[in-house]
Amino acid sequence: MLGQCLENVRKAGPLVHNITNYVTVNDVANVLLACGGSPIMSDEPEDVVDITSICGGLNINIGTLNQNSIKAMFLAGKRANELNHMVLLDPVGAGASKLRTDTAVELIRKVRFTVIRGNISEIKTLALGSGTTKGVDADIADAVTEDSLDSSVSFVKDFAKNTGSIVAVTGAIDLVSDGEKCFVIRNGRPEMGRITGTGCQLSGMMTAFLVANPDNLLEGAAAAVCTMGLAGEIGWNNMKPEDGNSTYRNRIIDAIYNMNPSDLDKGAKYEVR
Amino acid sequence: MLGQCLENVRKAGPLVHNITNYVTVNDVANVLLACGGSPIMSDEPEDVVDITSICGGLNINIGTLNQNSIKAMFLAGKRANELNHMVLLDPVGAGASKLRTDTAVELIRKVRFTVIRGNISEIKTLALGSGTTKGVDADIADAVTEDSLDSSVSFVKDFAKNTGSIVAVTGAIDLVSDGEKCFVIRNGRPEMGRITGTGCQLSGMMTAFLVANPDNLLEGAAAAVCTMGLAGEIGWNNMKPEDGNSTYRNRIIDAIYNMNPSDLDKGAKYEVR
Amino acid sequence: MLGQCLENVRKAGPLVHNITNYVTVNDVANVLLACGGSPIMSDEPEDVVDITSICGGLNINIGTLNQNSIKAMFLAGKRANELNHMVLLDPVGAGASKLRTDTAVELIRKVRFTVIRGNISEIKTLALGSGTTKGVDADIADAVTEDSLDSSVSFVKDFAKNTGSIVAVTGAIDLVSDGEKCFVIRNGRPEMGRITGTGCQLSGMMTAFLVANPDNLLEGAAAAVCTMGLAGEIGWNNMKPEDGNSTYRNRIIDAIYNMNPSDLDKGAKYEVR
Repeated sequence: MLGQCLENVRKAGPLVHNITNYVTVNDVANVLLACGGSPIMSDEPEDVVDITSICGGLNINIGTLNQNSIKAMFLAGKRANELNHMVLLDPVGAGASKLRTDTAVELIRKVRFTVIRGNISEIKTLALGSGTTKGVDADIADAVTEDSLDSSVSFVKDFAKNTGSIVAVTGAIDLVSDGEKCFVIRNGRPEMGRITGTGCQLSGMMTAFLVANPDNLLEGAAAAVCTMGLAGEIGWNNMKPEDGNSTYRNRIIDAIYNMNPSDLDKGAKYEVR
Repeated sequence: MLGQCLENVRKAGPLVHNITNYVTVNDVANVLLACGGSPIMSDEPEDVVDITSICGGLNINIGTLNQNSIKAMFLAGKRANELNHMVLLDPVGAGASKLRTDTAVELIRKVRFTVIRGNISEIKTLALGSGTTKGVDADIADAVTEDSLDSSVSFVKDFAKNTGSIVAVTGAIDLVSDGEKCFVIRNGRPEMGRITGTGCQLSGMMTAFLVANPDNLLEGAAAAVCTMGLAGEIGWNNMKPEDGNSTYRNRIIDAIYNMNPSDLDKGAKYEVR
Repeated sequence: MLGQCLENVRKAGPLVHNITNYVTVNDVANVLLACGGSPIMSDEPEDVVDITSICGGLNINIGTLNQNSIKAMFLAGKRANELNHMVLLDPVGAGASKLRTDTAVELIRKVRFTVIRGNISEIKTLALGSGTTKGVDADIADAVTEDSLDSSVSFVKDFAKNTGSIVAVTGAIDLVSDGEKCFVIRNGRPEMGRITGTGCQLSGMMTAFLVANPDNLLEGAAAAVCTMGLAGEIGWNNMKPEDGNSTYRNRIIDAIYNMNPSDLDKGAKYEVR
């Protein structure tokens, strides 16, 4: 099933418009190419409406937002919605600053997102809609663990219902839910957290999976999460003693490039709740 | 002959000012260093006139243009022209948006370019000067193939004559013409298209080749194309089964770093028409 | 001693706010993660005060400055000073343009920097405070060599005294001084100059070392310089014949990722004058 989602990306070669941060943008582009998609980046308000129109999906990542790119996010989001394109939000740093929290909350209010994907702190900030400058309330921002799994699944399902978006919370255990079903995914390696931008890369790739799997959006989103996590495992197996996080970054993208649908079907570790 | 052009880059160590997109900028910098040049990046209107003045060449790439960097492109282009510097245009995405097409057309009108380098769709958009938001006309935008080679060579020669610039169209077969002669180049690997920014890298490197070969500009431009393509072949030969597009990117830049002029003379595959 | 400084970074996991150029930003982020720190990037004036408030250190790099990011540098610097955070200035290209020189000089006037780190030309430009568009006077801008070492050490000590900052001048021989003592460091490889951004990487990493070693700032700064240089040596030893500058970049970051405090104590080559 999930392997078929990857196969569909390879066949469709979806064009994805990314408004994303300048820190990890090169890796996002190469991951999109590795999975079979095609990246375009544009964040100038006067340019984004045209660019998003020729794409199948839009990936909005607020990692290094500025006044100009924020305008572009709203304009591109509006246009993508009019065209019924897939639209994904990666609320990087929501909770860490008032501008980031406010921008993410306002985007969710004005743009219809197919998927909202972030870490648990970012998603909890958005679920509360607090908009405070101090960010995430520590009482609520607990990591997803085996102990907290039941309540975390409920939380993610509720937020998905409330927003009408698929919600993907990634971490040691990943949760992907459309409000009814929730994929609980256990692929990946803790060392992925020592590379900058694996989350950003996943958001770009996931947008391609959505475009290529319009009739199975939840499975498409889950397949992207499993692809990234499995690539983290394969990449780690290819590491030599002298390798570190910079080479690991290459090995993960390489593993996506070489992954077959059957590899994904065999390697994906998930349950549906 | 082409090997000598590379040798000249190594000896001159040309400083190149790049106004380029933030997606592939790091690779552009490392390719410039690999071939023997030296990169500087600056896209602030108040900064670019000073920066371009201390360089030998200017590489303008409109990949992630914005209102601020567009101003910088015109200011730097004007100053580089006054100083008779080498100036290259990479019209990334011309045809994909009105802003990109209009900016590229206006740049060609106001700045004298030594070389215009792009893919066939971008160059055909500029040759028509259409400025439409829908981009390239599909009837015209045929890829350069063995079957269409004669008409493609004529097209490129005509556009070079009309603009007074050397025109470099890169793809499966590369064409580089000054309006009289046309280099037809068959180096490279199709897998280079699965890496983001090989075109941008070529544009940066080609600017260094122009600066170092002022008396043989056409050969210099062709040598840069052959260097990139040959590096793609050498890099591919160095790939291991688990390697993918991210490692391939490194292997190509590495191959340029290690390339000798005699390697280039032996490996370059071209004819002149 | 220096190994302990690295150990402290690993234990503290310092969060570093970077206002830095888009050329080398990804490598800066991965180096920070490699040494045990954690990077955040933000350069929007409305965002930086919040972001810097949750960090322990601020790294200001003027490599691709623009009017917007310059405003952000002053705002973040002011806030970081109010909070007694570590603040580092990397005056990339000071002397190459009036805007860069003026911005660096003005930053030093208005922000209290824990460390100013640059190459000898940049530091000499700042020491003269000339603010001319032509940049560094060639008579003064001599590289630090064994022959000029005595006068270079005096120069660096004087500039440190005058600014009240630790001054780190990096090159073939690195000098790090607080005005009283001066570390003279001989780690590193000349080939590091063929990679874009090793200086930027060092600045990011050094900020993490400062945050983690508040009671030994001079040793912390020197330890960061030795870590970078030693990683350059280890990375070079791991190079294969077909490897070049792109792979070398990865090998250096990998070496930092794998470096133990005892490796650093054994490999650091320095004297204190």
